[in-house]
Parts: sequence; structure tokens; C-alpha cells
Amino acid sequence: MTDVGIIMGSDSDWPVMRLAAEALDEFEVAHEVRVVSAHRTPHLMLDYAGEAVARGLKVIVAGAGGAAHLPGMVASATPLPVIGVPVPLKHLDGMDSLLSIVQMPAGVPVATVSIGGARNAGLLAVRILAATDPALLAKMRDFQESLRALVAEKDAALSASLVERP
Amino acid sequence: MTDVGIIMGSDSDWPVMRLAAEALDEFEVAHEVRVVSAHRTPHLMLDYAGEAVARGLKVIVAGAGGAAHLPGMVASATPLPVIGVPVPLKHLDGMDSLLSIVQMPAGVPVATVSIGGARNAGLLAVRILAATDPALLAKMRDFQESLRALVAEKDAALSASLVERP
Amino acid sequence: MTDVGIIMGSDSDWPVMRLAAEALDEFEVAHEVRVVSAHRTPHLMLDYAGEAVARGLKVIVAGAGGAAHLPGMVASATPLPVIGVPVPLKHLDGMDSLLSIVQMPAGVPVATVSIGGARNAGLLAVRILAATDPALLAKMRDFQESLRALVAEKDAALSASLVERP
Amino acid sequence: MTDVGIIMGSDSDWPVMRLAAEALDEFEVAHEVRVVSAHRTPHLMLDYAGEAVARGLKVIVAGAGGAAHLPGMVASATPLPVIGVPVPLKHLDGMDSLLSIVQMPAGVPVATVSIGGARNAGLLAVRILAATDPALLAKMRDFQESLRALVAEKDAALSASLVERP
Amino acid sequence: MTDVGIIMGSDSDWPVMRLAAEALDEFEVAHEVRVVSAHRTPHLMLDYAGEAVARGLKVIVAGAGGAAHLPGMVASATPLPVIGVPVPLKHLDGMDSLLSIVQMPAGVPVATVSIGGARNAGLLAVRILAATDPALLAKMRDFQESLRALVAEKDAALSASLVERP
Amino acid sequence: MTDVGIIMGSDSDWPVMRLAAEALDEFEVAHEVRVVSAHRTPHLMLDYAGEAVARGLKVIVAGAGGAAHLPGMVASATPLPVIGVPVPLKHLDGMDSLLSIVQMPAGVPVATVSIGGARNAGLLAVRILAATDPALLAKMRDFQESLRALVAEKDAALSASLVERP
Amino acid sequence: MTDVGIIMGSDSDWPVMRLAAEALDEFEVAHEVRVVSAHRTPHLMLDYAGEAVARGLKVIVAGAGGAAHLPGMVASATPLPVIGVPVPLKHLDGMDSLLSIVQMPAGVPVATVSIGGARNAGLLAVRILAATDPALLAKMRDFQESLRALVAEKDAALSASLVERP
Amino acid sequence: MTDVGIIMGSDSDWPVMRLAAEALDEFEVAHEVRVVSAHRTPHLMLDYAGEAVARGLKVIVAGAGGAAHLPGMVASATPLPVIGVPVPLKHLDGMDSLLSIVQMPAGVPVATVSIGGARNAGLLAVRILAATDPALLAKMRDFQESLRALVAEKDAALSASLVERP
Repeated sequence: MTDVGIIMGSDSDWPVMRLAAEALDEFEVAHEVRVVSAHRTPHLMLDYAGEAVARGLKVIVAGAGGAAHLPGMVASATPLPVIGVPVPLKHLDGMDSLLSIVQMPAGVPVATVSIGGARNAGLLAVRILAATDPALLAKMRDFQESLRALVAEKDAALSASLVERP
Repeated sequence: MTDVGIIMGSDSDWPVMRLAAEALDEFEVAHEVRVVSAHRTPHLMLDYAGEAVARGLKVIVAGAGGAAHLPGMVASATPLPVIGVPVPLKHLDGMDSLLSIVQMPAGVPVATVSIGGARNAGLLAVRILAATDPALLAKMRDFQESLRALVAEKDAALSASLVERP
Repeated sequence: MTDVGIIMGSDSDWPVMRLAAEALDEFEVAHEVRVVSAHRTPHLMLDYAGEAVARGLKVIVAGAGGAAHLPGMVASATPLPVIGVPVPLKHLDGMDSLLSIVQMPAGVPVATVSIGGARNAGLLAVRILAATDPALLAKMRDFQESLRALVAEKDAALSASLVERP
Repeated sequence: MTDVGIIMGSDSDWPVMRLAAEALDEFEVAHEVRVVSAHRTPHLMLDYAGEAVARGLKVIVAGAGGAAHLPGMVASATPLPVIGVPVPLKHLDGMDSLLSIVQMPAGVPVATVSIGGARNAGLLAVRILAATDPALLAKMRDFQESLRALVAEKDAALSASLVERP
Repeated sequence: MTDVGIIMGSDSDWPVMRLAAEALDEFEVAHEVRVVSAHRTPHLMLDYAGEAVARGLKVIVAGAGGAAHLPGMVASATPLPVIGVPVPLKHLDGMDSLLSIVQMPAGVPVATVSIGGARNAGLLAVRILAATDPALLAKMRDFQESLRALVAEKDAALSASLVERP
Repeated sequence: MTDVGIIMGSDSDWPVMRLAAEALDEFEVAHEVRVVSAHRTPHLMLDYAGEAVARGLKVIVAGAGGAAHLPGMVASATPLPVIGVPVPLKHLDGMDSLLSIVQMPAGVPVATVSIGGARNAGLLAVRILAATDPALLAKMRDFQESLRALVAEKDAALSASLVERP
Repeated sequence: MTDVGIIMGSDSDWPVMRLAAEALDEFEVAHEVRVVSAHRTPHLMLDYAGEAVARGLKVIVAGAGGAAHLPGMVASATPLPVIGVPVPLKHLDGMDSLLSIVQMPAGVPVATVSIGGARNAGLLAVRILAATDPALLAKMRDFQESLRALVAEKDAALSASLVERP
Repeated sequence: MTDVGIIMGSDSDWPVMRLAAEALDEFEVAHEVRVVSAHRTPHLMLDYAGEAVARGLKVIVAGAGGAAHLPGMVASATPLPVIGVPVPLKHLDGMDSLLSIVQMPAGVPVATVSIGGARNAGLLAVRILAATDPALLAKMRDFQESLRALVAEKDAALSASLVERP
């Protein structure tokens, strides 16, 4: 069963959004990837959002840039948690994308991650599913432990390289 | 016949948006005013946009604040020109509203006016209609002439007040 | 059982954060409210985060302002989903709070809502729980339906008030 | 007859502004392209604006960067709708251009599009003309339909490429 | 003879701009005050700028807010030094006014002062005139000396008030 | 006699600031170029400013980046007009330089030009000197006329290139 | 002996800067308070900075707003650590003050605290002195402990108030 | 004995942070370099901060980017002065890093330097140690003198190069 839907307005967002898919792969969370545009396919977008529960989805990850309406509009048409990824475009460094996604009015929340932060969007989806799935929760703990180990490694490597300085 | 539709996401936007209606009143342009929310009534919003041409509308003025998706979403579902008014909310002074409205992706334009600039949205709707309506164009010229006269009056009044200084 | 922990760095954040509690009350989701400070009680904060799973919490909502470190630090010490509320302080209108919360590095996500958006934080917690709780999901659908009804009411009221204009 | 005038302050704006001309070409809307500078040829600029109606123009598209005064000044001297394109310069990513164009005072509106959004300026000019031109309106509908088809294609292509992953 | 022309787009700018006039009064520099609007009286504005030299003006101080085009447009039509005062409006705290005035293209400079800094605009006009007027230069030196004395007084007063603390 | 002093905090500012020198060369205005640092040579800086009048300077052009204190500090120690050039550094695109220069307190003005706008700083110095020098004023008029001619040329060239399109 | 010098450009900064003095009072660190202006008394400022070591000062706390040059200029003329407090003025919410203070060039550091953060400036001065003063270090530890206790109190009080809700 | 601890969240910060180490090397101040992450190793971070005094450290320099929590969190768990270096990441040019570090709440200061300003962080650490170490203070004076000499050299070189222009 597919738990997470990853959507984006254009395939040009894929280089950013694939990081969300990769994070879900690492946790073996089933997901689908779709191009759905708020501005070019508004009815399709609402249909996608409206059918998400019936199709078994539990979380939707939506990436968009500029006047980034996709995450908020999807959230308006589904009761599921929607995670928004501000995709940075050519100008303004993603600040427009961030504000367009995060500043939702009371009633319709979007769980916003950092500019270009699709990997974190995937990890947040895992955490959401893990909240009621002990096995997945254990995997997330392992993952966090691995982050700690990685820092220790980098610390050792940096120290070693400094000692070697003449 | 109603030429212009003025829409907003909440009646709390009315104190700003009424300035658009007043501008249209001054030019005797028929208009309607509706509360239509992108996030609370997404299907109704698309219906409104989709039926606008058939109902005889020629321009839509849409006001929204924060993650302001209404103007862009309406523009996605109608071929008519859509004018967006960034309504300033409690925080960020309308900068989020402005960017959410103006930074539309290629393919779906929104004619954006200044933060809180609903009066100019009304006047822009008049100019759009006037482009193919000589009588309305003449009215707009008269209006511009009246602005010039107003400046002359203010100039005279300020000069007079300065002369009176002891 | 308590599903959601609402925490904030100071009781001065309570006027904002109580909106999260109220939203959870509306959905009859059990929650606790605690003052836990990243900068004044760092060890207590990590303890709170570290024990959250064992205590049965499923979601943590954390509000903070300025150099707002609470949500991200809590997320570093729990595998649960953490929702961050950027509390606006006296200067910068909450932009510092927003960036300090949302711009988390890859590996540790925080689900960020709008500046001052504690009500949406509560609603997001409900959606997260509802993803695997059909009864709660149904309530969220009802809530969304009520938003639609509210817009219809406001639309009718505004139209009525306009007709009454002389 | 020429319906749309595209103007810019310098030929260095042409790589951006040519997208407006291309959009008009796609819809077979007659247009002219001129270099007219607010700061280097102020009288010529006012003359151009003042004669636009008599010359048969219906919409003016003006691009400018930095302290971008061309769109607003042209709007002050014509009753026609003026579309402003904020051209990004070397610094500030077009934010200065955007604010200089969009923040017009009450009385003189400029229909502002996104930073560098000349293609949308052209499409907005088409929508304005189409508001009273059923044939052009039909073309705009077809164009919007083609956008939908394009999304469907991209969606299929992305899905196909993902299936092929080992 | 009138050396300095102070102009503004509306009498609503006078509470800010009067500080420029007061500074000139302190130095007994003859000046005139006029309401001249870039957007409402574009031709009058260019006429004012074009005739400034012949009328004996040596410096023009221009205040404007929002899409603040007055200083730059006046500078385009006179060879005299033009000082721009960014007048803060209701939103954006004068940042739009500042960028619209200061970011002029190469060829047409505007001497920009701080947001709301009309007093400094007056003092800058004095410095410009004083560059070739030894008597005025001596006055400016005296003024600067008086600023030093004022700081010494404030320093003494603050120290005294602190000593008196119980 | 040297009329204008061009100063900068480091020779790394020279690629920007040389445009000021070139503009003065075009108008045959005598000038000197010096490296004087507010933060590395504070006493030398105040000496330079304090002796400027006695050495015959009439205008000082000061370029600085980041926490750009040079223009304002020089203005504090001379009665001459000081022109500030915000030099953009590696981060923030010159916005820090601009605010550090333009936001001077009442009493000590700096005539600020655009980010990186050293050419305009040179031209502004010419205008300041020209205010009381008819021959230089005539040159500035000629220069402005040449800008107009340049726009006409570019307009013709662009039109020609468009006609040639197949 | 006086360890810390607190300086500010105007007595209007005192309502902000007194918080630095109060923090030093709490730790019984001897300090002086002076009005010293970078722009109005530049030589006095350099004298104050130049004599600081000889007079026995160990840390200087400098507050300034807008184009806030005082902290950086003082740092240029003393080898002592200088703490900068960005004082917010009427416009821009202290962002100009912050950037003018913090963005110092390599070679001359200023230890910058938050906008309006004079209390933290005082506490930072204590930490600097405490780095080589075990008794003062112990006091700082006690202070940090008291912050922890305060949070515990607030937590208990908030919990109590919530229980009392009907 | 090691006086200064330099820490950073990832070895990817080392190209920026090594400038702090180099500055300390120039002054022969003993220091250590560690990778310690607020978000990946929160307990280790608090341990590092908590043991700093006992290990003889006197100053901690902490670099971080984005939602940069390391400096503030370390400051929460040590009474020593903590210097924060905002490391610029891929987006927002370090503005998020700066605000996350500098906007600390009252009670827990971080001595913030410029974006990417690790060299100044090292120099600030030297100044802090020098405040109670006359020999080190003398070195800092010599260093400042060398900056003055460097400016004189650059001034001479620039002047020479200009004279050589044909």
C-alpha cells in the first residue's frame, strides 16, 4: 500500500523533490510520485487531494516554488497532513516560496520545511507515520543514532587532519 | 450586466477591498462582491472562476492576505484578466501577501497592485474595460485630469499656509 | 492518555500558544502544556524530548520566538514529529522566529506553521493523529465542511449588507 | 493595427522582455517594440504614453529594473492599462525593481507581474484584449488546455522514468 | 533669490518634509515649497525640473513614498543636484521608498538620505551650497560645533542623573 | 586644484570606485584617489576629513562595504558634502552597505547613491560643482543630451534587428 | 576600579541601554555610563576608545541605532573587546542598526547582541570578565541556575492555572 | 593549556571556521577544534559546554548555518563567553544563520560576528583574553598598528598605479 504521495508542479522540481523520495526509500516507506500543478491543472489537483484518503495515502508531500500554492491548496481539499517544500527558483532565493507555503490562514495548516529541504520532508513523513508505528519509530531512532555516529567520525577525521599539519 | 467580480477570502478583507468597489462605483461600472475562499471553499472558488465568462464577467479582482492563493488560483481557472490585491495581515506588513500573489509561474499571470491597493485594483479594472470602450476611456482621462487639478489645489493651499507663517 | 505535548519557552508565549490547546480541545485530543526553555533549561528540555515516546506522546508542538531553538532542539532528541510555532516578538515581526525554526539542516525536520499560527499547529497535530485514526479523520472532514459553511454565511451576510446600501 | 506596445529603458532589458513579444506572437497579437527611457528620455516617454490611444494601442507593457520608474510614469500619462515587468539587475535580485513598480500610489495603477516575468506580461496583455474579444478568449482557453496537457505529459514521463529505476 | 526648491507629491508628505524647510531656515537659505506629483502631474513635474536652472535654483529636495519616482524623474530633467527623501508610508516602513529613490541607473544620480530624513536633506542642501560659499561653510562648521556641545551637555546631564540614584 | 577626493577603505574597492574617477575624468574635474580606512586608520580618516576644506576639496566621494562607516564618519568631520557609495560584498548583495551608509542620524547627512553606483557618485559630484559653475552645468546638459541620443540609437538598432527577423 | 564602559550616541538610547547597566549592577561589576557620539563627537569618541585601557576599562558596551557606527569605530581605536547593541529606531525595526554593527570587516570585530538586547550586552560583559575571574564565574553559574528555577516556577504556575479551568 | 574551543556542526563548516583557528595561531593562543552538532549530537553538545570550564577553556567559538542553534545552545550550558559565527549556506546568504544566532533571549547572550566572519571571531577571542592579559593586549595593539601600515601601503600602491596611467 502507498502511504505517501509526493507531488510537484513541474518535473523541473524533481532534482529537489527526489530527496524526499530517497529518504522514504531509506525507511522502506511506500510512496508515489506525481506531477500535479495548482496553476496548470487546478481541478486535477483538487481531485488528487480529494481522493487521497480513499486511495490509502496517509501523508502528502508537495513541493512548489515562487507563488507556491500547491501545498496549501492540496491541504484545503484533504484532511491528511500535508508537508510543503519551498523550492527555490531563479530569484529571491526561495523566500517567496517559503512565505507562500508557510503563511497559511487559520484552519488549513501546511507542515513547512526549509527552503529546498525535500529530504527533511521525507523524514518528517516518516516521523508522522512512525508516531503510530513502533517498528518505524525504532528505525527513526536508529537513524538518529547513525547521525550521532557520523558526527563522531567527522570529528575524529577533522582532528586527525589537524594533527597532521606541520 | 455585471462586468467585474470582486472576491475575497473573508469578510475581514472587506475594509480593504471596498475601495475597489468604490472606484468602480465612481466610474459606474457594474460589479458584484463575493466571499470566496481558496482554502476554505476550493471547489466553489474554481466554480466561480470557471463560470465567470459565461456569466458575462470581464475582469476579476481578488484580494487575499498571507499565503494569498486566491488570485492565482482563480487565474488558473479562467481566461479573464485577474487583478490581485495583497491584503496586509497582522505580521510582515503584506510582504508575504505580495510575493504570494505576484510571483506566479509562467503561463498564469496575475495583475498585481500595491499592498492594500484595492482602489488601484478598481481603477485598473476600469482601464482594462476602457481599452475597448471609448466612453469609459474618456472618463478615465477626466479622472486623470481631476488628479492634476487636485495637486494644483494642494499646491496652492500649502503655499498659502506657508505665506501665513509669521 | 496524553497524545500531544504543547511546550513553550516562557509563559509569555501562552497568549499565542493557547490557540493550539484550544484547537486540540475542539477535537477532544488529550494534551499537556509545559513551560520548557531551550536556553534556560537545556537539560530539562532534552529530558522532556527524550522521554516523550515512553510517556505516550505522539506529537510535540513547540512555540518559540527570536532565536527560536526550542522546536529544533526537541526534534533532535525525539523521533516524534515536532511542530514549530514561530512566536513574533517585539522586533522583526516574527521573521527571525520563522527562519530559526524552519531552516533546519537535513536530518532533523521541524513541521513549521505560520508566524503566530498556533491554532494551525493544533490542527496539524490533529491531522497527524487522524492519518491513522478514522474517527478523528472524520472529525477533521466535518471541521473542513464547517469552514465551507462559514464562508457561505459570510458571503450571504456581506451581500445582504451591500444590498441594504442606499 | 498594433494593439500592444512593449517598451523598455535599455536594449539590455531585451533578453528578458523578448518573452513578452514571443507570447504575443503565439496569440498573433500585433505589437511594437521600443526603447524608451524614463530617466534618459523623460519627454519622449511622456509623448509615447500621451499618444498611445491615438495611435491605436490598447495595452502597454513596460519593463524596467532598479529604481524602475518607466511603468508607473507611463501609466501617469495614458488612460490605458499598463503592465509592469520588474527586470532583475545585478544586485537585490529584482526586489528593488518589484517594489518600484508595484507600490504605486492610489490613482495610478500598474498591473505588475513577477520578477523577470515578461512572458506573463504578454499573456496578461492577451487576457486583457480577450476580455472583449471572443475569438482571442477562445485561444486563451486553448492555451490553458495545452498547459494541462503538458502537465499530464510530464507526469507520465516522470512516472515512466521512475519505473525504469532498477 | 531662491536657492533651494523643496517639492513633494502630496501635502500629506509635508509633516515629514517641513523638517527640510526648517533646516534651511536655520541657515537662512532661501527656498520655496511646492506640491508637484510625478504620477498626477507628470508634465508639470518635468516643466518644474526643466525651468529650475533658469529660475535660479541650485539644489532640489524631493520627497516621495512607496513607488517613489519624483526625485529620480526630476533628476532626469535638470542638471542640478537632486536630493531624495524616502517618505515612509503605511506599509513596509519606507523600504520601498528608499529602494525606489536610491537605486537609480547609471547616468542619473539622486543624492538619497535616510528614510524620513528630511532634516538631513535640508542640511545636505546647505553643505552643497556651502562648498562654494565660505560664509555658509563657516555656519556649517558652527552647527557641527553646536552638535558637539549638545552631546557634552547630554553626557553631563545623564551622569548627573545617575549620581543622584540612591 | 583638486576639487573632489575619492576615498575607499581598501584597494579591493577600486574596481567599483574607479567608475567615479572615470566620470570625473569625462568632465575634466580634478580629483585625487586615496585609500583611507574608517576601521584600520580611524585617526588618519578624521585628519583627512578635517583638512579637506583647507586643501581645497569641495566634495568627497567615499565608498565602503558591509558595516560601511567611512562615508558617515568622514561627514562627521567635514562641513563639505560627502557622497557615499555602498560597495556590495560577498554576502547580502550590498543591502548592509546601503543601510549602513544611508540611515545617518539627523545632523550629519550622507548623499547616498545606488549599490555599486560609483559612476553616479562621480556624476553627482559634477552636479554639485556645476550648481555654481555655469560652464560645468552646460557640460552636464550636454551629457544628458548625449544620453537621449544614445537611447534613440538603441531604439533604432533594436527596431532594425526586429525587422530583420524572418 | 571601573571595569566596563557603557556608551551611547544620545541620551535617547538610555531607556534601552540602562538594561546593560542594571545587569552589571546585579553582578556588582563597576561601570561608567557616557554619552559619546560617533557622528557628533568623532574625536572625543576616538579619545575615549584610545584611553580606555589606560583608564583600566576591560570591556566597552556601545549602543547605537540606524547607521550605527559607534561600536565599530570604538573597536577600531581600542584593543579591548567591544560589545555592540543595535538600538531599534522608528523605522526598519533595528535591522539597519544590526547590520551596521555586526557586518564589520575582517580585522576589527564587534561582539553583537540582539536588537535592543542591552541586558544581554551587560551579561556578556560579565561573562568576558568571568572568564578569568572564578568568583564572578561562580556568580554567573548561580544566575544561570536561577533562570532554571524561574522556568520551573512558571511551568508550575501555568499548569496550576490550567487545572483551575472549569 | 587550551584557552579557546572552536566548534562547528559539520566538517563542511571548516573552510569558513579555519579562519578563526588561523587568527588564534597568529596570536599564539592555544585552541582546540571539534565537530559538535546541536541537532545531531545534542547531549554531546551540552556535555562539551558543561565541561568547558573544568577543562580550562575560557572562550568558545561556535559556527553554524541555517537554523543555527549551536552557539546559543552552548551558551545556555556554560558561563563562559560564546562567540557565534553565522555560516552562510546555499540559500538566503546567511541571513537565517545571523538571525538564529544573534536574536537570543534576555539571559543568554551570544557574541555574534559578521556572516562568514570567522577570522573576526578568532580576533574577538583574543581581545577577550587580552582584556586581562597585558602581553596579549600588547600583541593586539601591534596587530592594529600593522593594519594601519597595510592601509598606508595600499594607499601608496594605488596612488603609484594611478600616476602611471598614460
